[in-house]
Amino acid sequence: MKIRDTAFLFDLDGTLIDNVYQHVLAWKEALDEIGISVPTWRLHRKLGMSGGLFVQALMAEIGTALTSDEIARLRESYRLIYRGYAGTVHALPGAKELLRHMSDAEIPWAIVTSAHRSSALSRLAMLELSAQVPVVTRDMVKHAKPDPDLFFAAAELLDVETKDCIVVGDSIWDLIAARRAQALGIGFLSGGYGSEELIKAGAYCVFDGPADMLSKIHEVGARAQGVRITPG
Amino acid sequence: MKIRDTAFLFDLDGTLIDNVYQHVLAWKEALDEIGISVPTWRLHRKLGMSGGLFVQALMAEIGTALTSDEIARLRESYRLIYRGYAGTVHALPGAKELLRHMSDAEIPWAIVTSAHRSSALSRLAMLELSAQVPVVTRDMVKHAKPDPDLFFAAAELLDVETKDCIVVGDSIWDLIAARRAQALGIGFLSGGYGSEELIKAGAYCVFDGPADMLSKIHEVGARAQGVRITPG
Repeated sequence: MKIRDTAFLFDLDGTLIDNVYQHVLAWKEALDEIGISVPTWRLHRKLGMSGGLFVQALMAEIGTALTSDEIARLRESYRLIYRGYAGTVHALPGAKELLRHMSDAEIPWAIVTSAHRSSALSRLAMLELSAQVPVVTRDMVKHAKPDPDLFFAAAELLDVETKDCIVVGDSIWDLIAARRAQALGIGFLSGGYGSEELIKAGAYCVFDGPADMLSKIHEVGARAQGVRITPG
Repeated sequence: MKIRDTAFLFDLDGTLIDNVYQHVLAWKEALDEIGISVPTWRLHRKLGMSGGLFVQALMAEIGTALTSDEIARLRESYRLIYRGYAGTVHALPGAKELLRHMSDAEIPWAIVTSAHRSSALSRLAMLELSAQVPVVTRDMVKHAKPDPDLFFAAAELLDVETKDCIVVGDSIWDLIAARRAQALGIGFLSGGYGSEELIKAGAYCVFDGPADMLSKIHEVGARAQGVRITPG
């Protein structure tokens, strides 16, 4: 059996950037504005899937179909409200350091997000990435998480196979999508899920967030000059 | 063995009122203002304990002691920011109906919160309670959750023993405090905890929130004219 280097595919929102709660409340307020009442925790648990699926899941939740006009207005309203929260959004502790460690150790890695590039740009800037880092966004694939397309696209950019990748994410949608791509998954608590929820969704280990993962980096086999573990 | 009626002690914030995420972000913003960075999910997981303990837990988190002046300013800032979110705060689906069912069935119940009465008043008003409902607030006891004092005070008002009470709450602090009072605990997902976190903290069953509990009210033995289960 050929043992290949392992690559790491990092989710962005909630995993490297501390902005899940702002996303949740922005959706809550946008829905409130059009008179739709959904318990906030249910919005929280749906975040991280593709925007299209999110809206479908939402309609199933409220038992009403929205017109495409209503959906467009809702999304625009959400975007504006979220922008109002932008001042409170920062990189998670250790995020920049973890990514720098990966680069210094020459471990292949990429950022993989269900967000569109235009909306992700300001958060990507917080991570001070070099221009060489592959960033896979919603625009680049047909289906976002929990479909595995984003991970296949990232693996291709890194010239690895998804079975040689470890997906790092804060939501169950990252982990479910990782399984569909035959990748291992690491769960972060930084998105507000409980540890067991992440494990049930397929996480093979769980950390608090980037700083915690960096402090235990040997536990996931992220060795300098390539990793000697294959998930497949 | 004498079998006694079971009483239900309901937590307020996150259990009957959908306001956990607003509390979380208000703390996040208040801390940001004084340059203290704490990952948002950690604030989420500390909510629901007494305010004094919350600040102590926070200081342990950031590894710095705050002066009592700084703490007072932080709390005031938090209160003001939370007030800005007040328009997005509503009763959870089924909350009023669940409480009405309890009253109609003549099951003894009370509201028990770690919040001060002055800050809880606007949320209590959303529930349209009758003046006869016992409400136990932070002001009435020496220690709030996870100490059991609030539950002992509520049991006294209802003329029952805490071992004949079932505590209903959304955070692990409700459930831990319930165990310390020898009461059973029911966990709600409406505060954003995962089911297993609530069970590990002692929940003997878990519901999505008030509407879900009401639809399965027979499962917790909340029978009209008194319940025939004793937890003790």
